[in-house]
Amino acid sequence: MDERVREMKDMNNLDQYEVGFDIPAKPGMNEADIQTPALILDLDALERNIVKMGDYAKAHGMRHRVHGKMHKSVDVAKLQERLGGAIGVCCQKVSEAEVFARGGIKDVLVSNQVRDPAKIDRLARLPKFGARTIVCVDDLANVAELSAAAVRHGTQIDCFIEIDCGAGRCGVNSSDAVVAIAQAVEAADGLSFTGIQAYQGAMQHMDSYEDRKAKLDIAIGMVSDAVSALSDAGITCELVSGGGTGSYYFESNSGVYNELQCGSYAFMDADYGRILDKDGKRIDQGEWENALFLLTSVMSHTKSDKAIVDAGLKAQSVDSGLPVVFGRDDVEYLKCSDEHGVVGDPSGVLAINEKLRLVPGHCDPTCNVHDWYVGVRGGKVECVWPVSARGRAY
Amino acid sequence: MDERVREMKDMNNLDQYEVGFDIPAKPGMNEADIQTPALILDLDALERNIVKMGDYAKAHGMRHRVHGKMHKSVDVAKLQERLGGAIGVCCQKVSEAEVFARGGIKDVLVSNQVRDPAKIDRLARLPKFGARTIVCVDDLANVAELSAAAVRHGTQIDCFIEIDCGAGRCGVNSSDAVVAIAQAVEAADGLSFTGIQAYQGAMQHMDSYEDRKAKLDIAIGMVSDAVSALSDAGITCELVSGGGTGSYYFESNSGVYNELQCGSYAFMDADYGRILDKDGKRIDQGEWENALFLLTSVMSHTKSDKAIVDAGLKAQSVDSGLPVVFGRDDVEYLKCSDEHGVVGDPSGVLAINEKLRLVPGHCDPTCNVHDWYVGVRGGKVECVWPVSARGRAY
Repeated sequence: MDERVREMKDMNNLDQYEVGFDIPAKPGMNEADIQTPALILDLDALERNIVKMGDYAKAHGMRHRVHGKMHKSVDVAKLQERLGGAIGVCCQKVSEAEVFARGGIKDVLVSNQVRDPAKIDRLARLPKFGARTIVCVDDLANVAELSAAAVRHGTQIDCFIEIDCGAGRCGVNSSDAVVAIAQAVEAADGLSFTGIQAYQGAMQHMDSYEDRKAKLDIAIGMVSDAVSALSDAGITCELVSGGGTGSYYFESNSGVYNELQCGSYAFMDADYGRILDKDGKRIDQGEWENALFLLTSVMSHTKSDKAIVDAGLKAQSVDSGLPVVFGRDDVEYLKCSDEHGVVGDPSGVLAINEKLRLVPGHCDPTCNVHDWYVGVRGGKVECVWPVSARGRAY
Repeated sequence: MDERVREMKDMNNLDQYEVGFDIPAKPGMNEADIQTPALILDLDALERNIVKMGDYAKAHGMRHRVHGKMHKSVDVAKLQERLGGAIGVCCQKVSEAEVFARGGIKDVLVSNQVRDPAKIDRLARLPKFGARTIVCVDDLANVAELSAAAVRHGTQIDCFIEIDCGAGRCGVNSSDAVVAIAQAVEAADGLSFTGIQAYQGAMQHMDSYEDRKAKLDIAIGMVSDAVSALSDAGITCELVSGGGTGSYYFESNSGVYNELQCGSYAFMDADYGRILDKDGKRIDQGEWENALFLLTSVMSHTKSDKAIVDAGLKAQSVDSGLPVVFGRDDVEYLKCSDEHGVVGDPSGVLAINEKLRLVPGHCDPTCNVHDWYVGVRGGKVECVWPVSARGRAY
């Protein structure tokens, strides 16, 4: 086993990159000169979102472990630590955790199961980069695999037991199973039982606040049962972790969760933006600001009523619907093919090379298509950050 | 203007990469040890597809300009040249053309319009890499922009006039417009009129052979008119280019097209595979073989009737439907979220870490998510190729 700490490629050294060939912009450029399609971050909006959620978590006594699977960026995670008091990150894959740990994040949860032997081995090496390393477990058989790897590397892996609290995917289905796995973890060398993972992903995008609350009440009930069962078995549960942009107020007021895992609040997207708060208002109209945009250019306009833009399926994911043209009621993104978007332009107002800011339908898989974030403020490019864990799905 | 020919990063030097952290496999490994999710190529099937299309084109006197936007790989393009007699590539973006030209492909068509000043400048530099460079034009105003850039760099840009032959996107709508732009190109310094781009993308995925034929007959009629109008104006049309995996037999027998632009035939996908040939048979059951697979692993199985696999939206695009589990009637990919797939397993036959080969719904945007192709033969990894132009959408 090769134990060297290989350096990550210094993606923050922009001098090695050529604008156009391999990078969409450099600091100091005007926003209008960014090579499109490109992901841009409105830094003012991003910072306000981060501060707001940080203040909320602090006021409610919650730890905020920001979800790095959304942005996959060490730079954004560090901004969330600095401005939002984030205590670390969660992410979904070992390859993402490797990027965050090597990038200097000191508390990293893989909020997912790790079963492949090589991946378990990689996971067990993460503490050597200085990161507290936590992983989710939902199967007793996984405990011995994790323990053997931790012992082999002389490290400690902290374990969350994951409860399936409604998403119907990973996670155990009973408090008995939580206790049985927690006991096995406590008895295993190199492992430590640290808490419960209970993220209800299936309800986050339900439009109605009351519908979301009803689903989360079920989750809170399951988690309370599990914590009681652990207590009855003499096991302390340090952390109960979960919560997303569509639910964090429920977890924060539950009396049982003590750690949030919000991600999308920082960037926002069109699909999340449509859900309603308790007053029936869209959450992108007051609660959170759109900070992420897909900048696109008009590149053909041979029909009077539609313009063709340069952002198609290779610049975004349309799994949760088409993007929305930001700040424009006169034009509409109608259709998405591999490299083109068709934008309805009934009054023929769009000019060749005109730029549009699109709000992506779904931020996570859209960010995962791009290599770079271009941070803008006041019409100027302020920073260009790598999407450090882009494509790292293994 | 910096005229140096910057070297591409040597992505074929695999020694610098660590399996797991940044590459899914290395040559010599067993297929079962590939870190998933990963794109794998069945090299035997890929080679048979390439040879078959090459033989068809040759037998029908057609040039085959393979569509590099599908695979974005210099290695695959060179295999298509070597085994399939491809005369070069087409692609959709300047950034892709830069990769193919710098990678040694000698005839590169950007089958799209280029309007941004910086992109036009980059395009005009491509001949310096030794590549004949062709671009599509659909607007008279574009001619002067292209000419100025070619003159500035002392290069020649060949121009196709694009006809909108049914897709309703880019392209001119009349033979008069074709002639007017061709005349302007002929009169412009640094440019040469080379032919017509007439790709009917909207019909490629229609299930019925007869429906596709009816659409293509309209395209052929438009192209014939344009060629006649050019001839009447004393302009020779060297190339008429178009055709895809769902239509190449129509263009090849049209008497007017002389260049094909097929892409998906080489890899195949679930959506294309469903269209029917003239005998009513799916084209993935005889005409073309599935050569591209998304390899995924079972990573949780806490419900008896469904398994959770590690390939979700960040490992594929579901714009054209969910992936299909290859060679298995007993399990079915039912649902796709960011990092997970839910696989129906009614008989509970799937084991933790079991690998499944998924046929992606849509190959182009799925390839664009991955950094690597893992070529396999006989259960062993034979090669690992970079997706050289991945993410290069600008």
